[in-house]
Amino acid sequence: MSSIVKQLDYIFKPASMAIIGASDNVAKWGHMVLDRPLHTGYKGAIYPVNPQGTKILGLPSYRSVKDIPGPVDLVVITTPASRVPAVMHECVEKGVKGAVLISAGFAETGGAGKKLQEEVVKIARAGGIRFVGPNCMGIWSAAASLNNAFESAPKPGEIAFISQSGTFGSYMAEMAATKGYGLRMFISIGNQADLTTADYIEYLAHDDDTKAIILYLEGVKDGRRFFDVCKETLKKKPIILYKGGSSAAGARATLSHTASIAGSDIVFQNACRQLGLIRSEESFQIFEVAMALLGQPLPPGRRMAVLGTGGQAVAIIDACQRLGLEIPRLDKITSARLAAMLPAHAPHPSNPVDFAGSYRTAVDEANVVETLLKLDYIDGVISNVPVNPLLWSKKLDKLGKPELLEQIQKLVDEGVGQFCGLPRKYGKPIACVRWHGDASKDTVSIKLTEAGIPVYDTPEQCARAMHGLVTYAEVRRRGNHA
Amino acid sequence: MSSIVKQLDYIFKPASMAIIGASDNVAKWGHMVLDRPLHTGYKGAIYPVNPQGTKILGLPSYRSVKDIPGPVDLVVITTPASRVPAVMHECVEKGVKGAVLISAGFAETGGAGKKLQEEVVKIARAGGIRFVGPNCMGIWSAAASLNNAFESAPKPGEIAFISQSGTFGSYMAEMAATKGYGLRMFISIGNQADLTTADYIEYLAHDDDTKAIILYLEGVKDGRRFFDVCKETLKKKPIILYKGGSSAAGARATLSHTASIAGSDIVFQNACRQLGLIRSEESFQIFEVAMALLGQPLPPGRRMAVLGTGGQAVAIIDACQRLGLEIPRLDKITSARLAAMLPAHAPHPSNPVDFAGSYRTAVDEANVVETLLKLDYIDGVISNVPVNPLLWSKKLDKLGKPELLEQIQKLVDEGVGQFCGLPRKYGKPIACVRWHGDASKDTVSIKLTEAGIPVYDTPEQCARAMHGLVTYAEVRRRGNHA
Repeated sequence: MSSIVKQLDYIFKPASMAIIGASDNVAKWGHMVLDRPLHTGYKGAIYPVNPQGTKILGLPSYRSVKDIPGPVDLVVITTPASRVPAVMHECVEKGVKGAVLISAGFAETGGAGKKLQEEVVKIARAGGIRFVGPNCMGIWSAAASLNNAFESAPKPGEIAFISQSGTFGSYMAEMAATKGYGLRMFISIGNQADLTTADYIEYLAHDDDTKAIILYLEGVKDGRRFFDVCKETLKKKPIILYKGGSSAAGARATLSHTASIAGSDIVFQNACRQLGLIRSEESFQIFEVAMALLGQPLPPGRRMAVLGTGGQAVAIIDACQRLGLEIPRLDKITSARLAAMLPAHAPHPSNPVDFAGSYRTAVDEANVVETLLKLDYIDGVISNVPVNPLLWSKKLDKLGKPELLEQIQKLVDEGVGQFCGLPRKYGKPIACVRWHGDASKDTVSIKLTEAGIPVYDTPEQCARAMHGLVTYAEVRRRGNHA
Repeated sequence: MSSIVKQLDYIFKPASMAIIGASDNVAKWGHMVLDRPLHTGYKGAIYPVNPQGTKILGLPSYRSVKDIPGPVDLVVITTPASRVPAVMHECVEKGVKGAVLISAGFAETGGAGKKLQEEVVKIARAGGIRFVGPNCMGIWSAAASLNNAFESAPKPGEIAFISQSGTFGSYMAEMAATKGYGLRMFISIGNQADLTTADYIEYLAHDDDTKAIILYLEGVKDGRRFFDVCKETLKKKPIILYKGGSSAAGARATLSHTASIAGSDIVFQNACRQLGLIRSEESFQIFEVAMALLGQPLPPGRRMAVLGTGGQAVAIIDACQRLGLEIPRLDKITSARLAAMLPAHAPHPSNPVDFAGSYRTAVDEANVVETLLKLDYIDGVISNVPVNPLLWSKKLDKLGKPELLEQIQKLVDEGVGQFCGLPRKYGKPIACVRWHGDASKDTVSIKLTEAGIPVYDTPEQCARAMHGLVTYAEVRRRGNHA
């Protein structure tokens, strides 16, 4: 096992944890980072540390980390910056292995803070402690159900999110949770005084339960190492990046936000492209694209077929072509075969295929998608979510024919079952777009998601997701030829 | 009153309506277009017409529209295409004024259908009937609570949506409803055999309750008239367009979808830019941008100031600059004034201004935004939603200090009240971006929205909305100088 894995396991899978600066005052960080793990499933030992307290949140509290009876893997430090060197010394004496340094007031505040930060790094390094931060908002690790970053525990999942912005990162993660995206890890990296993005990526590369790594970065420390680690990691799993500071005024803002020098965006963009990092134009797209990369096979090429309804298919195709995906015309034999599967008034199927708003079953749609995936000149399919007439069940109930409802349910189950099996059967990905407004009621979307087929609200999200798959597939092919 | 207003009022504000082809069979259009207005608030008389029925959905049914005792303003026709000429003849005899022709099987199917369509147009024109469609999915008109397009009634609002795709249009409208966007009108325009997009826009230009017009179009019939009508309408209200078929494969798809010839996208793009139509790159953005144009004053220029938190502010600024908005540095006096309003460790305020995740009240934030709006070199502000500590009230409750909760609520109310008054006070717009995941619980967002300040999930949506305001402001200024 590489040493980084062993070291960072103490931070992300600690058997015990002390909260230094723990507090009963709900307005303080020392309260939040103690209260959150207590209520969101962390199973290890938790020790509050505070010079005053005897009991905090009902737990016995210690005056110093050194007074804790058992071993302490991880400390979370929220004390004022000036006290952190002394605290770190005590942690070294105690034999602590890792730290999350929430406290602010270090390099981000200028010269004196920078010196203080260097002092803390020196103490930690000499004492064998690796640490996250300072000036960060904490972590979430599904491996240990360890959460000190969020009010509620995130949904566990396969995406690891490394964020250089605490507030914005945790907002994106919260918004992702409302959309059903699960998180394997969240790391608010802060000033990266000790551990840097490259370290986290190297660690996550070894974590088999992390299937995709997403990044919000404003600048990169030690660019060469960052790109080297990314290159190695990309052999195993995709990395998707949103980089803040791509504009002149944005770069100026990153300087005062995280003291990052955003550097030339063109140079950075070229490096990303060469390596095959997937770069998002918009912040939240890192989640949307990651979702497709979790459960779908990588497409053999960039030639897509589309099953969609009217303007939706048009918008999918426009978005695909903007992103450089190809939409081949279908051959005559396939076109004739598909025409026989569509209602008479539907447009002649070339690409897209369109049921023209007519009655069809999920089985009909699965058959069309299967026909498309079989083609040797098609590398993946973008499809509307298979039809689910039970969304209108209020009306169908009116018919007073329970046997009809049962029959429809059977067709839905059968079609969706077939549909969900197609990506594995043909080794080609499917991405789906919704066409009913109220997603929460759509059991078909839920089934697709569970089977690893990503479902999106808009045609453009869907096309971007497929583009992410194509980009990463090309990286992996390059790797295999190298 | 222009003749188009009078004619189209019969369609969008009918006193009485007949459904021709009405049916008790829930799977039929003739059922849906009767059932929907019955259950979603239409107050006028509704007459089912069907050669067989005596009662449909509990209403007395007529064998012919001519048998209906009272006058009939509007007919909704769902009979097979071949019967439509005869039906239209009867409508003329009855003195019907307008029609929505749901039936498909006309020009979209080729030569014979095209002829049939021409025949219907001839009969209607000779008889003084204007009509929507054929091959469309119906309309929603808030003015008459008239809905035959949606399963549930849309939320009434100030956006009118003209869509060349029925299914995709109604999906977008449904999704908009889940996000709280209200609709004044929805028109599924179908084949535009009689009434065209230009006619609807001309009508909506005269409707004072329509504050923004959004379009999903694949092609334009009679481009000169379309652009002339847009030019006139833009003097009164904004038009936001998503055009399908901007790519080669997309254009091919529109041809088989609505027989639209998408034409050269560059020519079209240039015409839009010259006129000042706001063109969306992605489909759902037509709604997002429209939202900002409903309730905000038009900015005097394109110079924006940003109040945001960390990476959020960076992403806002990057997105603004991509769209050509300017982010001026703040002058020294203002910068010093703002610094005094921020916590000591916050970065020196230039632009963006950032509270650096510290404690502040909504009043503090309103004061910062007001300071920015006062500047003669700032034309609008993009801000995070003012802070609402009551989102954490579960924790605040724990304090057992109800007087503290009251005090916080007072500060929130005061700050949000001040904030909501700023756009009018300074004649400059504000757009807000959320920074809490669970929007449904955020009463502050709701208050802002009610006051006309649009609230978005992502920094990029917010920047696009501001760009829409800037684009439309420039159109109006050009108009004033012409």
